[in-house]
Parts: sequence; structure tokens; C-alpha cells
Amino acid sequence: MKKEISQVVIKRMPRYYRYLGELIDQGTERISSGELSKIMKVTASQIRQDLNNFGGFGQQGYGYNVQYLYDEIGKILGLDKTHNMIIVGGGNLGLALATNSRFDRQGFVVTGIFDINPNLKGKQVNNNSIMMMSELDEFIQHNHVDIAALTVPKDNVQEIVDHLQELGIKAFWNFAHLDLEVAEDVVVQNVHLSDSLMRLSLNMIQRKERYQDDE
Amino acid sequence: MKKEISQVVIKRMPRYYRYLGELIDQGTERISSGELSKIMKVTASQIRQDLNNFGGFGQQGYGYNVQYLYDEIGKILGLDKTHNMIIVGGGNLGLALATNSRFDRQGFVVTGIFDINPNLKGKQVNNNSIMMMSELDEFIQHNHVDIAALTVPKDNVQEIVDHLQELGIKAFWNFAHLDLEVAEDVVVQNVHLSDSLMRLSLNMIQRKERYQDDE
Repeated sequence: MKKEISQVVIKRMPRYYRYLGELIDQGTERISSGELSKIMKVTASQIRQDLNNFGGFGQQGYGYNVQYLYDEIGKILGLDKTHNMIIVGGGNLGLALATNSRFDRQGFVVTGIFDINPNLKGKQVNNNSIMMMSELDEFIQHNHVDIAALTVPKDNVQEIVDHLQELGIKAFWNFAHLDLEVAEDVVVQNVHLSDSLMRLSLNMIQRKERYQDDE
Repeated sequence: MKKEISQVVIKRMPRYYRYLGELIDQGTERISSGELSKIMKVTASQIRQDLNNFGGFGQQGYGYNVQYLYDEIGKILGLDKTHNMIIVGGGNLGLALATNSRFDRQGFVVTGIFDINPNLKGKQVNNNSIMMMSELDEFIQHNHVDIAALTVPKDNVQEIVDHLQELGIKAFWNFAHLDLEVAEDVVVQNVHLSDSLMRLSLNMIQRKERYQDDE
């Protein structure tokens, strides 16, 4: 039985990947764990521990080989494979996801966009033209779908998720303002924008209160 | 000196608020900490501990008064005040934020949308018409701005943030694909969509690997 990797570590991996990508863009070929730790604002031992969850990546001579570490973390994150993603909800947020070229470069390919609004039917969004929800079943039966991104209002989203699960979808990227009920073998990643904005607001208050204390 | 509240607690508060809002919508007036804990999938003692950070909210008789707790947590989150928010970047993501009626209801009022694309100048988005970045300085000098949401590509975002800080902006809601460098008294809340998608991908792999173990 393999050790389960904690969500805290899972959360840090994309961040490592992002910073290593920046280093590559800047032409950095090697980096010591000390330097990497300084840039990323985590301790060097934390970095080593995190990477050890995935077998570890020994530093040869002076530090890590940036490209090698980037590629390896990419594989850990599954970026060496293509993920077909559909977007349920063709509003501004759905379109923002559908037109984000970074996702595509990282192997998350938007293969279908669905909405209920007949005015959107056939609307061209990059390589996709928006389909109607009534076409969803047939699409999934004929096209392999790995991920469904949900950019619909919260009211119907659980019903949609129940249906998508019946059609075999096992991964949801949820932007609706509620937590989903899903089967045990289904993975959900939430992006609760309102929650994020409230955390910002709370941090603003906390910061102000601390300032008053200091004065 | 007041005790600083941890980011873990701060992260949970909007979630409490969201669940209490759901309960109100369903007509629930009172709830025991046990029931609340079951719905929210955290322990009752965790809930009590979290609320104690903010002075605590004793259960009178049978459980919590849902509306009271909702209102009090709303105050903790600063939702009893209006926050003026500008959006820098008038693409799909910027428009998604500008047209989200929930933010407005929670007191986060979009007062300006800015872009560099002259084709977007004057484009009407709810109560706003898109302004040019060249108008930003004057706007901020004449209008109180609490939060700047950043929905621009990462390449210029640090420069924009430096400038906005000079203009007195102390809070950023950052959607650009990098971590910002800011002054000590400035608050940043990141929404790194690529990171979120990679976490989903990594969880999909972990889930599959666990399944193979079970077979």
C-alpha cells in the first residue's frame, strides 16, 4: 500500500513547477536548494521533503538541474499526458477557461463547451463551437472526456454533476458556489471565487487591526 | 498585541459563511454544532475553536441561531462594509468578475474596469464602461479604491502592481500566473488557475494509483 500524499504537498507541487518554469525562462540551468528555497519562500528541507514523496531528486554536484526537475515535476503532475476537458457553461468564465492558452500548452485540451442558451449555439471559441446541453450525452459517448469544468450557476450544478458521473466523468473542476456531492472515486477541485475574495477582505481587516496595534 | 489569526482559520471562515447562507436559503433557523459539523465535514470542536478566534458565539439553548451566526461571520469577513474594486484587464476573466452579481451583493462593488486595448474603450459592462489604462491614475486619484483585481497576462503585472502601490492600493486579487512582490502592508490573494488545474490532475493520478493498489 503506497503512502497517500497529503493535500498540502499536492498544493505545493504546481507552485514548484511554476517557479521552475520561470527559472527556465530566465535561462537558469542549475540552482541550489538554498537559492530555490529563497525564491520560493519555503525552507530547503521542505523542498527536499516534498520531492521525496515522489522518490526524490538528488542534487548532483551544484544543485538541481532546473530543466530536469521541471520535467520530472511535470510528469508527477500528469502534464506529460493529454487531458480532454469539457466546459459546462459558456459565459464569461467558461470562455476565459476555454481561451487560456496556458492550459492547452500544459496538456489540458478543451474539446467541448456546452450551454443551455440557444443564442450561444455554434458560437466559435478558438477551436470549439459552443454546443447545447442536449448534445452533451452523445458527445461524451463518442469522445473521451477526462475533466468537466463547471462554470454554471450553483442552482443546477449538482444535478449536472450527478448526470456527468452517470456518463463516466471522474474529475470536476468546480467554479460553482457550492461544494459538490460526488462518489468516492471522483475527484473535485474547487475554485470558490467568492471565498477567495472574502479571504482577501478578512486579511485586509486583520492587517489593519495589526497596524492599529503597532501604532 | 492581538493574537494573529492563522491563514487556515481565515480560509475556513468564508466556507462557514457559505454553508450558513445555504441553511438560511433552506429556512433553517437553528442548528446544533453537531449538525453543522456533519454538513460541513469538520469536527464540532474545530468549529468552536475557529469561532473562538473571533470572540466565540455561544450556543443558546438548542444550537446556533443561523441568521445571527451568518451575520456575525459576515461582519468578521468585512461584508458589512462596501469595498470598491477595480478590475485591471477587460478580457473574459475580467468580465466574468465584473458581471458576478454575488460579489456585488457581498459588498464588493466593481467601480472601474481598465484595459490597454483601444477596441474595448467605452464597452459597457453592467454599470461600468471599460476605461483605458492611461485613465487609471486620474481615476484612482478621484475615486477611493480598496481592491485591484488583476486579470492581465503575467508579463506586465508586477509593473502594474508597483504602480498601483504608488497610487495607494493596498489589496490585490491576483489572477496572473505569478506571485507578486509587494510591500509589507499590502495584502494579496492569489487565484492561480493553472495551479488549481494541476492539483486536479495530480489528484486524478493519486486516485488512480490508489485504485490500482486496492485491486
